[in-house]
Amino acid sequence: MSETRTATPQTPTPERPFGWDRGTSAARMAEPGEAGRAVLAELAAALPADRVLTDADTARPYVHDEAEWAEYGAPLAVVRPRSTAEVAAIVRAAARHRVPVVPRGAGTGLSGGANAVDGGLVLSLERMRDIVEIDAGERLAVVQPGVVNDDLRAAAAKEGLWYPPDPASAPWSTIGGNVATNAGGLCCVKYGVTRDYVLALEIVTAAGEIVRVGRRTAKGVAGYDLAGLLVGSEGTLGVITEITVRLRPARTAPPRTVVGFFDTLADCGAAVAAVTAAGLQPAIFELVDRHCLKAVNDWKHMGLPEDAAALLLAQTDLPEPAATAEADGILAAFEANGARDALVSTDPVEADALFAARRLAYPAFEQRGDAQLTEDVCLPRNRLAEMLERIEEISARHDTFIGTVAHAGDGNLHPLIMVPPGDPEAKARAQRAFDEIVDAAIDLGGTVTGEHGVGLLKRAGMRRELDPGSLAMQEAIKKALDPDGILNPGKVL
Amino acid sequence: MSETRTATPQTPTPERPFGWDRGTSAARMAEPGEAGRAVLAELAAALPADRVLTDADTARPYVHDEAEWAEYGAPLAVVRPRSTAEVAAIVRAAARHRVPVVPRGAGTGLSGGANAVDGGLVLSLERMRDIVEIDAGERLAVVQPGVVNDDLRAAAAKEGLWYPPDPASAPWSTIGGNVATNAGGLCCVKYGVTRDYVLALEIVTAAGEIVRVGRRTAKGVAGYDLAGLLVGSEGTLGVITEITVRLRPARTAPPRTVVGFFDTLADCGAAVAAVTAAGLQPAIFELVDRHCLKAVNDWKHMGLPEDAAALLLAQTDLPEPAATAEADGILAAFEANGARDALVSTDPVEADALFAARRLAYPAFEQRGDAQLTEDVCLPRNRLAEMLERIEEISARHDTFIGTVAHAGDGNLHPLIMVPPGDPEAKARAQRAFDEIVDAAIDLGGTVTGEHGVGLLKRAGMRRELDPGSLAMQEAIKKALDPDGILNPGKVL
Repeated sequence: MSETRTATPQTPTPERPFGWDRGTSAARMAEPGEAGRAVLAELAAALPADRVLTDADTARPYVHDEAEWAEYGAPLAVVRPRSTAEVAAIVRAAARHRVPVVPRGAGTGLSGGANAVDGGLVLSLERMRDIVEIDAGERLAVVQPGVVNDDLRAAAAKEGLWYPPDPASAPWSTIGGNVATNAGGLCCVKYGVTRDYVLALEIVTAAGEIVRVGRRTAKGVAGYDLAGLLVGSEGTLGVITEITVRLRPARTAPPRTVVGFFDTLADCGAAVAAVTAAGLQPAIFELVDRHCLKAVNDWKHMGLPEDAAALLLAQTDLPEPAATAEADGILAAFEANGARDALVSTDPVEADALFAARRLAYPAFEQRGDAQLTEDVCLPRNRLAEMLERIEEISARHDTFIGTVAHAGDGNLHPLIMVPPGDPEAKARAQRAFDEIVDAAIDLGGTVTGEHGVGLLKRAGMRRELDPGSLAMQEAIKKALDPDGILNPGKVL
Repeated sequence: MSETRTATPQTPTPERPFGWDRGTSAARMAEPGEAGRAVLAELAAALPADRVLTDADTARPYVHDEAEWAEYGAPLAVVRPRSTAEVAAIVRAAARHRVPVVPRGAGTGLSGGANAVDGGLVLSLERMRDIVEIDAGERLAVVQPGVVNDDLRAAAAKEGLWYPPDPASAPWSTIGGNVATNAGGLCCVKYGVTRDYVLALEIVTAAGEIVRVGRRTAKGVAGYDLAGLLVGSEGTLGVITEITVRLRPARTAPPRTVVGFFDTLADCGAAVAAVTAAGLQPAIFELVDRHCLKAVNDWKHMGLPEDAAALLLAQTDLPEPAATAEADGILAAFEANGARDALVSTDPVEADALFAARRLAYPAFEQRGDAQLTEDVCLPRNRLAEMLERIEEISARHDTFIGTVAHAGDGNLHPLIMVPPGDPEAKARAQRAFDEIVDAAIDLGGTVTGEHGVGLLKRAGMRRELDPGSLAMQEAIKKALDPDGILNPGKVL
């Protein structure tokens, strides 16, 4: 990838609701070989004409996701079905001719999992965006994969219910993509990740068959947990065409926000550990490091203390007076571990301003025009400070600017590696820093990806992290469910 | 099976901590063929002598679980390893000679999943009972598979932590068995099932290799969720030799208990639906039907109203005053739907007495000397009353006594089918009733097993419930991970 991409969403249109501007050049399209021509002919016969894009210009928004530096290939075509039957027809045609299929949602992924492969079909689920059903009595929703996360949350809210998984991409990313990557977010420190909400899936298998897995009941152990296996499989085991998720009752208590600035990363880590040790369960528990504080100050002149090593932000959502007790407990843990400017806020406007430092960190860096590579390592909670110190050391040694935000309560860090455009030497240094961060996470007992997925960027790291026996089992399962390897080949494994 | 078994646990001994008295006859042992002799010779060479039992008398407690009527075979031997390395040696020997291996924990299962198969090894994990680690900072525990559920809960409590999954077998059943069956319990209506707590597993594969799957971090998406796939796989995909579970902070609020007696099953079902619709989340939400009330009265003379159709029992564990608000909300939902004798209790002694009707239902039926077949269907919550009415109808039509307790909040029913010993005609009628209950559950959109597992008893029902494509995927995974079919053959699939 040579062009710099910007992550500004375009105005959605009915036909391209999730389109992103990723530069001005057209996509490279594959020159169809014999198999490619056969597939295109079958698609033309089976589908209305508007389903298939082979033009390099219109295909452009579909060839890669938001993972900086991840390779992407020249696809044969982009296909945008409107129904499960159309998805099945597409996969059957691809399977007959052994043409790869890369499923994608909104393309907001950060690991290259949705990137086109040479000569393959990009299968965009963006047009399958019906909320099929919200059943308040059973506390569940059934949606098509192209439904945007925030749209499901809004629809659930109308029924007094709540869909918790809230990746930062929630305004654009789709439930299908969230399920394929097992997306996390801010709330998962208390409420769990996407997998914890998936009850059932309809999928199209590698052979093009439509299969239902999972159940609609609260519990169930009839057979292997195939729905759970599909969650996080990044389109390599099946194409998800319908999703049944459980919902929770809507939260009604106004949140209390607790903030504290820390002079050292060690103090900050100790404060996180103290909150856990006290048995407290904040609904949000985030960290913003000094580089991010400075970037937000530079951009928005917010007067955040730049001499602090990091800011911790917690939010509690219990009903009163438990909320006050929990907020006070968090504040006490912060103060006992050296926090300054620590406070509890109940004012939503003030709370929002406090969270601005977290929310604006990414856009603040974008203002600088640097390419950003978003890391996603997850550590045992108590290794948080140690990992942050290693990141500082790696950053200095490779002369690479790295700012970190983290889901502190989960030990999930997102170091943002910044590289000025047009500086290949800086890019090479940054890539070494990326590799060393991954290795440091493994060394400290963590994982190479907490919530963004393996895609392309974490394949090597995953092989370093996992037991070879575990990799062999994964390869055996992939081979069993996709013997010809047509589903998103080269991703994950 | 011809003998009647009683479920009274014997006094535990170090060597047989989970032994149950299942009648007086010795086990039938297989006459070793060539492969069997080779395996026994390899085991004798690889293991200390006390690990292998081939005597029909000492093998007796290991040949079946607590599933009434489930078939069990004549094993070659019972093997009781003390380490993962020993488990691996056993499975390697079995794999070399294609001898089946049936892993088992305490044998408290209710589906026949741990029953011996002819000529196979029974692999008892009961001696691997170390609590390896409890890490309060990370809120996790690492245990060997033979650790008893209640023992883990007690060890966690000492650290101010809580392991929620609480099957009724918790005083005897092991974490390994709980993981293999994805056990549920009373608390799962609010706190989830075993799968929701498993972070990582060490397993021995069908080839006898030791493999680690999963992670120690709060989140992680590096590769397919193999740990989740192993949970509930009933020993058919790997032998679980170590388990890492997440823990929650201990609950501190004293529970409030809400009870209500209902004149009709329809009212009772409406009350359950009303609790859900009000956004309430009791930590326990149980149902006891009139047959169980009468059995408890007959035995303990408790004076429970036998003219009621059913009793609902709920418990809230929120801190005050949210607990009072929730308890009052549940009471209001009960009363608005025709409950009588409804009340809220904060007195633990009174609460315990109220729960006695639930707790004593099984032992009350045991007093009668009948054989009990425990059903385990799970319905969409709002079909609860309808399913209870169908069970009454099935019971009457087949002249078979059926009493039902249920995890009402989950829609998980446990109809207990009672058969007098020595009455083959009654047994045949009961088996027809069993099949019809399974079919009714499928018909109403439910599943044939909510938490007990497929084992032997639900294989046919599972095949009727699931999409054929889902069964084919499961068979492909089984074939991929256990190509020679040595792990618990004939179970689940």
